[in-house]
Amino acid sequence: MTTQSEFKKVVLAYSGGLDTSVILKWLEDTYGCEVVTFTADLGQGDELEPARIKAQKMGVKQIFIEDLREEFIRDYVFPMFRANAVYEGEYLLGTSIARPLIAKRLVDIANQTGADAIAHGATGKGNDQVRFELGAYALKPGIKVIAPWREWDLLSREKLMAYAKTHDIPVDFAAAGKKSPYSMDANLLHISYEGGNLEDPWWTPEESMWRWSVSAEAAPEQGEEFVLTFVKGDPVAINGEALSPATLWEKLNKLGGAHGVGRLDLVENRYVGMKSRGCYETPGGTIVLKARRALESITLDRGVAHLKDELMPRYAEMIYNGYWWSPERVMLQAAIDASQAYVNGDVRLRLYKGNVQVLGRRSDDTLFDPSIATFEDDAGAYDQRDAAGFIKLNALRMRIAAQAGRHF
Amino acid sequence: MTTQSEFKKVVLAYSGGLDTSVILKWLEDTYGCEVVTFTADLGQGDELEPARIKAQKMGVKQIFIEDLREEFIRDYVFPMFRANAVYEGEYLLGTSIARPLIAKRLVDIANQTGADAIAHGATGKGNDQVRFELGAYALKPGIKVIAPWREWDLLSREKLMAYAKTHDIPVDFAAAGKKSPYSMDANLLHISYEGGNLEDPWWTPEESMWRWSVSAEAAPEQGEEFVLTFVKGDPVAINGEALSPATLWEKLNKLGGAHGVGRLDLVENRYVGMKSRGCYETPGGTIVLKARRALESITLDRGVAHLKDELMPRYAEMIYNGYWWSPERVMLQAAIDASQAYVNGDVRLRLYKGNVQVLGRRSDDTLFDPSIATFEDDAGAYDQRDAAGFIKLNALRMRIAAQAGRHF
Amino acid sequence: MTTQSEFKKVVLAYSGGLDTSVILKWLEDTYGCEVVTFTADLGQGDELEPARIKAQKMGVKQIFIEDLREEFIRDYVFPMFRANAVYEGEYLLGTSIARPLIAKRLVDIANQTGADAIAHGATGKGNDQVRFELGAYALKPGIKVIAPWREWDLLSREKLMAYAKTHDIPVDFAAAGKKSPYSMDANLLHISYEGGNLEDPWWTPEESMWRWSVSAEAAPEQGEEFVLTFVKGDPVAINGEALSPATLWEKLNKLGGAHGVGRLDLVENRYVGMKSRGCYETPGGTIVLKARRALESITLDRGVAHLKDELMPRYAEMIYNGYWWSPERVMLQAAIDASQAYVNGDVRLRLYKGNVQVLGRRSDDTLFDPSIATFEDDAGAYDQRDAAGFIKLNALRMRIAAQAGRHF
Amino acid sequence: MTTQSEFKKVVLAYSGGLDTSVILKWLEDTYGCEVVTFTADLGQGDELEPARIKAQKMGVKQIFIEDLREEFIRDYVFPMFRANAVYEGEYLLGTSIARPLIAKRLVDIANQTGADAIAHGATGKGNDQVRFELGAYALKPGIKVIAPWREWDLLSREKLMAYAKTHDIPVDFAAAGKKSPYSMDANLLHISYEGGNLEDPWWTPEESMWRWSVSAEAAPEQGEEFVLTFVKGDPVAINGEALSPATLWEKLNKLGGAHGVGRLDLVENRYVGMKSRGCYETPGGTIVLKARRALESITLDRGVAHLKDELMPRYAEMIYNGYWWSPERVMLQAAIDASQAYVNGDVRLRLYKGNVQVLGRRSDDTLFDPSIATFEDDAGAYDQRDAAGFIKLNALRMRIAAQAGRHF
Repeated sequence: MTTQSEFKKVVLAYSGGLDTSVILKWLEDTYGCEVVTFTADLGQGDELEPARIKAQKMGVKQIFIEDLREEFIRDYVFPMFRANAVYEGEYLLGTSIARPLIAKRLVDIANQTGADAIAHGATGKGNDQVRFELGAYALKPGIKVIAPWREWDLLSREKLMAYAKTHDIPVDFAAAGKKSPYSMDANLLHISYEGGNLEDPWWTPEESMWRWSVSAEAAPEQGEEFVLTFVKGDPVAINGEALSPATLWEKLNKLGGAHGVGRLDLVENRYVGMKSRGCYETPGGTIVLKARRALESITLDRGVAHLKDELMPRYAEMIYNGYWWSPERVMLQAAIDASQAYVNGDVRLRLYKGNVQVLGRRSDDTLFDPSIATFEDDAGAYDQRDAAGFIKLNALRMRIAAQAGRHF
Repeated sequence: MTTQSEFKKVVLAYSGGLDTSVILKWLEDTYGCEVVTFTADLGQGDELEPARIKAQKMGVKQIFIEDLREEFIRDYVFPMFRANAVYEGEYLLGTSIARPLIAKRLVDIANQTGADAIAHGATGKGNDQVRFELGAYALKPGIKVIAPWREWDLLSREKLMAYAKTHDIPVDFAAAGKKSPYSMDANLLHISYEGGNLEDPWWTPEESMWRWSVSAEAAPEQGEEFVLTFVKGDPVAINGEALSPATLWEKLNKLGGAHGVGRLDLVENRYVGMKSRGCYETPGGTIVLKARRALESITLDRGVAHLKDELMPRYAEMIYNGYWWSPERVMLQAAIDASQAYVNGDVRLRLYKGNVQVLGRRSDDTLFDPSIATFEDDAGAYDQRDAAGFIKLNALRMRIAAQAGRHF
Repeated sequence: MTTQSEFKKVVLAYSGGLDTSVILKWLEDTYGCEVVTFTADLGQGDELEPARIKAQKMGVKQIFIEDLREEFIRDYVFPMFRANAVYEGEYLLGTSIARPLIAKRLVDIANQTGADAIAHGATGKGNDQVRFELGAYALKPGIKVIAPWREWDLLSREKLMAYAKTHDIPVDFAAAGKKSPYSMDANLLHISYEGGNLEDPWWTPEESMWRWSVSAEAAPEQGEEFVLTFVKGDPVAINGEALSPATLWEKLNKLGGAHGVGRLDLVENRYVGMKSRGCYETPGGTIVLKARRALESITLDRGVAHLKDELMPRYAEMIYNGYWWSPERVMLQAAIDASQAYVNGDVRLRLYKGNVQVLGRRSDDTLFDPSIATFEDDAGAYDQRDAAGFIKLNALRMRIAAQAGRHF
Repeated sequence: MTTQSEFKKVVLAYSGGLDTSVILKWLEDTYGCEVVTFTADLGQGDELEPARIKAQKMGVKQIFIEDLREEFIRDYVFPMFRANAVYEGEYLLGTSIARPLIAKRLVDIANQTGADAIAHGATGKGNDQVRFELGAYALKPGIKVIAPWREWDLLSREKLMAYAKTHDIPVDFAAAGKKSPYSMDANLLHISYEGGNLEDPWWTPEESMWRWSVSAEAAPEQGEEFVLTFVKGDPVAINGEALSPATLWEKLNKLGGAHGVGRLDLVENRYVGMKSRGCYETPGGTIVLKARRALESITLDRGVAHLKDELMPRYAEMIYNGYWWSPERVMLQAAIDASQAYVNGDVRLRLYKGNVQVLGRRSDDTLFDPSIATFEDDAGAYDQRDAAGFIKLNALRMRIAAQAGRHF
């Protein structure tokens, strides 16, 4: 599809790990191009400096290292949570929502450095290649994308190690030794596990797999209560303390993780067509989703709430499939954002051994009107006889049908 | 709307409690009609014989008492769960799904006894009046419905008691004394609480309100594991033991309740227009929903799964609003049932202090194909290079748009 | 529900015709209130001055007469057409979209004059009462609404005439004599016919019923071509001549009517539960809908276009049912408006004997790229081999299912 | 992806024309395989015998020639029309719906003859390759598909002709000489035109392009009236004469074509990502769609009708994109078919110069109840006062919101 000479400079999404280090070298060798590295802190918990040092050692001249945590939560996670987005009833889209930001930065850096291609370390079987590439193409239609895993024959760990050795790529053998048997991905929103024994959906993962949370069993006997405050649908404060998006989310992750909150073990349908087992820890996201729904329950109009619920699966599918940078996502986001003006207020929560309990919700913008809903005398706020007419007219079409002899 | 002489005989949904006993008498007095009582066992946990004795004492000649538990689970709860129906993201529709069956039996009995009207004890502010009456009108378009709470002026407990005394209605003062401060409803699927302090959505209900489940805190330290087996989407066995629908559900309720599973505390939007706080215990339903989704995750095709998820909120809304006996519910049910032929298999579950954990899922009809999803070499089952074309064509429209200068 | 003394001043939607003149008098008599009249020009084609004179004669002190044609097209018709809104596959919502504006003005005038109620002449069987009242309640929740047709017993033409005579209400007997046998409603968007012989859906209306258009048969042998220009989805010019919204629409009505364009004869489902036959003439709307779709076909992204098509029936239902002034309509409108930024360009049209033919469409914002779609050599713009991968991955889930023995 | 030796026998969708004749030879040469030809009569209007003779001349041993017209209309067109399927608001899916049947027969014949691959003559830019191949993969997951247009370099007419000459392939030079400048496809449902000057969307096709219909201008001055009868949503008789599916459709095509009915000129979004101009003649389909909607308007319940309208765009997209043989199409079809039990009755139609006018509709299963909808006195069938309660409760949530200070 492309000839080697096409590429003069390639921006690589570089983690500093073995795979992307091999890719770095392989790109230079295969395409004779200069490689620019881009390493981002999305809250995955790794040090970034080692990546810089490693890139320098490998002779990279342009090294981009960026802390994108606030941008990630504020401009990607927050908008997505406004939709209460959940994929296939369970998955909180932790990996999916990080990819568009990385795609955007890769393209930005390509523009800035005059690179003619980008490269990533995602495999040809997964969703991430789609998310990276759809984003890149949407943002810079003429960009070239190199996905070494779809091209090369270094298809086993052993071959990678051999390549590293041959090409003098620094390998952290200590790290390689204690490597998890799972393929993992992490950012401020979640950590995920795939592969290995998880490929048997009847198998239960061992406790040691999980890294961010204790088990419900191991969680403290004493639960923890706090108040989460929202403005226009986004969480802004814990127990009254205003926090920046990333700081708040990090704190919720710690709180949730300490109480065994946010573990998921599921089988999902990948966009590329196969089913895949994934385990996820999303402590903060689990808390925010539960709290947001509680606050929306008193501040959203019913018509809006139901419309949101009906649109949500479609929206979640867009994010999952990699269409963040698409006009239809932007179109749906306009509707979702338009629904959030009054989603302001507090939710009182309790975390206890894997549970997120809503203890109460309140808002200056509440639509909960106890004077109408009350079982007590409502002093005329609601005329019960109206209900008879309401029912009669709603029943009319079915009465006519029944009269015509139809049976349901 | 109707004149008294219209009604010769009225079928009353009769619980045996104070309210419907007063209604029984009030109907006779107000309309000069004969009252037929109908009392059903839907698993609410009350003895039915006292209702019979009380009705006899009040001079009722035609008394219908029926055990509808199996029919309720098999023909109403099972079909609804096939849709993974959840209202407003949380509510499992425990009350909503019982009403259509009661409506149907009221109409059947009206046909059988030659009654010209039915009556119920639901208030004019709630959803249940709508569900009873839409059902009745759809099944028998010429039926008359009497809803005393929308007509009379006995709008407080005191007035009801006074009426009972005046009219010599037997009141169980012991029961009345220890009456819950909440309005409650129960059947095999759930028990609900409304009213009282719950009308303040910031207030947390006291532990003693909950009747079916222990709190997560009070649940045993030792969790419980078992295997739930499904055939065509319906649960049929626990740990390999085949059980009738109602027996199985009852057992799941006990298991769940013992481990603090299935409590909900939420604010919902009623069909009649106001928001209302409700607390629910749905132990069995919570387990079945979680297990069903796990089984569907390996047995449903992606296209079907996503379509189901998009249709679900609409389906749930139909049930909630009282449209079980509607042609559009039947139409949607046809699609949902058509999706369940292969939802067969086992789900291994663990209950622990409020959590329902899926430990594993397996099926002879699984679509999970580890030879394709694997991170290991797949021996050519999947050609990674196909992904490049897949992405390219999916990106094409966005590339054209970007080339035309559009920004998303 | 209300006692007479509650109303001091009532704003009446007043046409100047017999019905609303009787209502005017009846309101004064029944409620002892002052009546403020509001008469609007929405393009229905009636003179407004006679209404003023008649109101003065009847002693009305506050008379509001307003030309709302530009506001109607710009702020109601344009936004609705951006959605390509069609109710039940056919109806262009001509009556539905006028009601929210009238409701708004009634409420505005009530606020301005200190009136405590509004009144309208819509019957208790139709959709218009719902549209007026939902709008009024949404805009001013404490407003009272008087709908005489639901209250009084003047249920026949004869009784109305007798009441008019008794109460000295000026009746234009000449007009009454040549009154159409149909119930009609008109504004700049359409004219409608209901009732009379139309209540037999097998019956074909006589040619003389139609008032705005000639029949296809009677239309000229020579068709008419012109170019309609759109900016952000709204029509702004005919043959290059910029026109105000109402002027443009009026011109399209004339063009369409002259060529037999825009007649509809259908049975629709009313919100209040029954089916109803309606005939409509919507010449301009028919042209704009066809032209807009043609322009969207080259300027909208596929994802956006399909999402719009899926949301449209819901949007149209909202308008039809009277929920213009609802938060869910506003939410959907945000999405629809967000889709229209690039719907700019020209459509060349031909009207001929009932047909609207699209002859061509062009836009500076076109996404139609002949270099890709071409059957000729595309110089590498599109790599046909990408299609193989695209198909392979899209087929993967179905292949796995077939391999598992499933048959579709 | 495949090596030549893999294929022993290939089933080719063979029209007898130049392209598929070249493909026949090319397959033999390139893969050293035996070719089985399959030629179907779907009503495209070509003789089939010449295809047989040509195949024989080219040495084909197994020649399948089948008349699939009845099966096509009955099992593909009828079910699709039950959904009122229209793609992107205009296109009646004439090509899309023929592909699944051809895919099925190719697979059947592969099974029957022991072939290991199928081949087709669709290009790599269009939708048809997707439709053929998705169908084939879904029906026989291990099948191989050869799409010569994606593989070879015979990318111009000249190269094809040269190849034919070199390989002694019989070319009908007379036919080749008068070849249309457009790429065409035809079956009983429609004929389509693409390419050539149509690639400029501002250009209007010359009259001579259209083959099945006269122009509105050239249509007779005298219109034509007839009655179309439906049973369970499918058309079964014209003017009382029962006709087989294909016979009926053919007759409607003739009737429509004679009166200029069913021309379309549009730009559509292909599944493979680009926009494409297409012109279509669908006389019978245009008539049936219009008539079906008219009949559904009196026989379908509102809830069902609206649900159908909301699901339709999704269903149409499935067909267009090639997912006829998918579980989600089957699932939706179950709902659609479940809605059609009562769609029985007559529609009186008039064709006149491009117009299809509905003159009347009637059904023994009508839900149109004039005694309720009437503007005349309805003798109590409908209590207008019910409307007040209906409106009040529907307005309640918006009143509460307005009271809380919200503005829409």
